[in-house]
Amino acid sequence: MALAAGARVQARALLRPCACPGRGPGAGAGGGGGGGGRAPGLTGLALWFAGSRVLSAAPGRTPAAGGGGPGARCFGSPRVLVEPDPAAGMAVMKLRKPPVNSLSLELLTELVISLEKLENDKSFQGVIITSDSPGIFSAGLDLMEMCGRDPAHYAEYWKAVQELWLRLYLSHLVLICAVNGASPAGGCLLALSCDYRILADNPKYTIGLNETQLGIVAPFWFADTLVNTIGHRAAERALQLGLLFPPAEALQVGIVDQVVPEDQVQSTARSVMAQWLAVPGHARQLTKNLMRKATADRLLKQRDADIQNFVSFISRDSIQKSLHVYIEKLQKKKV
Amino acid sequence: MALAAGARVQARALLRPCACPGRGPGAGAGGGGGGGGRAPGLTGLALWFAGSRVLSAAPGRTPAAGGGGPGARCFGSPRVLVEPDPAAGMAVMKLRKPPVNSLSLELLTELVISLEKLENDKSFQGVIITSDSPGIFSAGLDLMEMCGRDPAHYAEYWKAVQELWLRLYLSHLVLICAVNGASPAGGCLLALSCDYRILADNPKYTIGLNETQLGIVAPFWFADTLVNTIGHRAAERALQLGLLFPPAEALQVGIVDQVVPEDQVQSTARSVMAQWLAVPGHARQLTKNLMRKATADRLLKQRDADIQNFVSFISRDSIQKSLHVYIEKLQKKKV
Amino acid sequence: MALAAGARVQARALLRPCACPGRGPGAGAGGGGGGGGRAPGLTGLALWFAGSRVLSAAPGRTPAAGGGGPGARCFGSPRVLVEPDPAAGMAVMKLRKPPVNSLSLELLTELVISLEKLENDKSFQGVIITSDSPGIFSAGLDLMEMCGRDPAHYAEYWKAVQELWLRLYLSHLVLICAVNGASPAGGCLLALSCDYRILADNPKYTIGLNETQLGIVAPFWFADTLVNTIGHRAAERALQLGLLFPPAEALQVGIVDQVVPEDQVQSTARSVMAQWLAVPGHARQLTKNLMRKATADRLLKQRDADIQNFVSFISRDSIQKSLHVYIEKLQKKKV
Repeated sequence: MALAAGARVQARALLRPCACPGRGPGAGAGGGGGGGGRAPGLTGLALWFAGSRVLSAAPGRTPAAGGGGPGARCFGSPRVLVEPDPAAGMAVMKLRKPPVNSLSLELLTELVISLEKLENDKSFQGVIITSDSPGIFSAGLDLMEMCGRDPAHYAEYWKAVQELWLRLYLSHLVLICAVNGASPAGGCLLALSCDYRILADNPKYTIGLNETQLGIVAPFWFADTLVNTIGHRAAERALQLGLLFPPAEALQVGIVDQVVPEDQVQSTARSVMAQWLAVPGHARQLTKNLMRKATADRLLKQRDADIQNFVSFISRDSIQKSLHVYIEKLQKKKV
Repeated sequence: MALAAGARVQARALLRPCACPGRGPGAGAGGGGGGGGRAPGLTGLALWFAGSRVLSAAPGRTPAAGGGGPGARCFGSPRVLVEPDPAAGMAVMKLRKPPVNSLSLELLTELVISLEKLENDKSFQGVIITSDSPGIFSAGLDLMEMCGRDPAHYAEYWKAVQELWLRLYLSHLVLICAVNGASPAGGCLLALSCDYRILADNPKYTIGLNETQLGIVAPFWFADTLVNTIGHRAAERALQLGLLFPPAEALQVGIVDQVVPEDQVQSTARSVMAQWLAVPGHARQLTKNLMRKATADRLLKQRDADIQNFVSFISRDSIQKSLHVYIEKLQKKKV
Repeated sequence: MALAAGARVQARALLRPCACPGRGPGAGAGGGGGGGGRAPGLTGLALWFAGSRVLSAAPGRTPAAGGGGPGARCFGSPRVLVEPDPAAGMAVMKLRKPPVNSLSLELLTELVISLEKLENDKSFQGVIITSDSPGIFSAGLDLMEMCGRDPAHYAEYWKAVQELWLRLYLSHLVLICAVNGASPAGGCLLALSCDYRILADNPKYTIGLNETQLGIVAPFWFADTLVNTIGHRAAERALQLGLLFPPAEALQVGIVDQVVPEDQVQSTARSVMAQWLAVPGHARQLTKNLMRKATADRLLKQRDADIQNFVSFISRDSIQKSLHVYIEKLQKKKV
């Protein structure tokens, strides 16, 4: 478990107040255009990850978070905008890494930090996770992190992917995923790790673990998470074929819980959150842990082996070639 | 496993013939008004439980049970009415603890004794479990057994809950549950432990494991039983939210197998029973065991630890307070 | 694991070119009338099974298989007709043991040999498994192999059943099952072991693990395979009752993936195959293994114990009597 090295930084440097567009109609979907800059004082990607460890030991709550009321200020990090609503006992967390919210090492780390911050603040019992760029929820794992890098980087990256999943899957917060755009691969995993999934009814917004289509293989804990959600048979077929489900099929197979018109995704998420937060919190948290612990434990018992599997798999020439081909295809599409 | 102490009594004293309203139309639903008295010679609740052990070693069959034919007499215990129908190879077992069939230590014990009695009598291959008070199947575990008592009592009570589940879940008898009323929490567990569930189509008759709504947590084997019935995802959501499903939703999620008009519940149960009893019994029993043994074994391997978990959880001040609040709310509703 | 003895033979003697009816319309459904004879040089059933081992060590590819193009010749063994279509990267494998494709030791062995042959030939990434006698896919395990024989025979037979399941369930080939007739018991297991199941829409073509109806019990790995396909609850009920599902119900419960008009089964299978073969093969194979290995391992860890269980179960007088009664009933039906 000593794979991520690097000097420790003040993680709270990542968390700074930002201009908050308010919570009026439409605010959830647009806004947040600025603030994409880099937090000062960071010397490298490894530091970000190590930072999440620091935060874990010392909560590092900023004054902006604990306060609140309807006028609570937004905060967040360069790639994760957090809009707190302590009056409702919740916050909205928006992925903000244009153009496609690819889960880079930095975004993964900032997500973990933001989540820990909210978990350590008793004002919050729930988080709505959504995209700041409607149209794309998240394109999933960042192929640039898995292509043409060295084994140490792959190891660090994979550890961060594990970390995010473990944090989300076992979070004592209620996590509602407002899937307001396409959600392939790692984007789908992110959604599956929440407690409830609402998908915008737009045929372009497909969701699924489509790794095989890229010539790569979802690890066992991606598969476990999908099996827990849609059952063994549907998962087996979806994983082998790398299926991406459009809304109606996604609902039918159960990979999302609800499909609503695009402009109702955020409001529905808030209604659902209110329903979940009405349940006595302690009992709900213990129940969630009861249902998810065995699945999380499977990874916890073999994190290092899983990292090594990933590193050796992704380092293969044939896999690197597949990824190159896929990346080129994506880049041509853009042009 | 030495948690239940107490002097042993003649368990067969619990089983006595009673006036049987016959099996004509309507008999299954009403009747059984008398017989609610207390069996003589019992000195306390612990004795009842110890009694089930005695019965286990020595079947204690009463003449009334083995005989039969269409005119077979009813028998049972104060809180469980048994209407044998040896010609059909089955009996109807009715919960009779007004007003809500709460699963007190006494009712749990009598259910186990009645079931053992039928299991030990080769005239019977199946049992229909239903309520003698249509409108409420069972309100579940008796909160009075879990509130304001001492740890030894909690331990004894929980062991009896375990015992009933283990008996039902692995019974070689075909168990059809005729759910003719509301069936929350422990009432739902009772239904889930059977082989088939028929719910009366009345929107008031909801069914589910709603423990979190009371601020308590269903133990892992309640959760396992629900997962085995409706799958992991539906169970995770239902358990976290403490959902109670009305008939149409109950059928859709699969927590019951069939929904029929209220006046057809008992006759449907008999038809379904005939279908199940037409299967060669030995093969069916081995198959049932094959499907359920691993789940039962999870509890069997840790019964004492599970009891201790329950005792320490239920003894917490915060839990006791939640239960008090809930009980008071229930009592106000009645007034 | 030393249960199957017997001299080794040249397994390739089993594989010989045969007259191929071509792949024009209708060819898949009819034809194959001849070729039912016995391969020369075989001295007994045990040899056939031992032969599959020989082939495993030495592929024994025949020239007819590796070649191909649209005009590739058919090959196969007396009871398994193989129609290669290397241009499409696949072959059609037809069960040809009239009248009901009962899975005799010989048929089991030939299926394993044919499958291994295709697996060892890189021209093939997929196989469509179907019946050469539309109307019956396979009547399942051959009762004649389980009735009135000695324990050594039962052991050998059961090992062959295990072998076929393990081969199919973990095959790196895409297996599409074109279920063009009734498919009870072992016939259903064969279908369940494939990656995708298409059933002809004819109410007579029922599918299911109906072992209990015969007074016997499906072993744990039959049950596991069914649970993986239709979930725990549906499997528990289906196995206890020995249910055979007609097409609409089969689709609803998920024991098949698709129901199509009878004359479209083969063409649909080809379309589905094309979809599966479009997925990068290596990633798909690793994913399949990820999803199925744990289930296969359960048997692999206790193959001998499972064989001994079968032998002692099937040798019981009561079971032998049940089977005799059932066989007589079947024979009367024919007359």
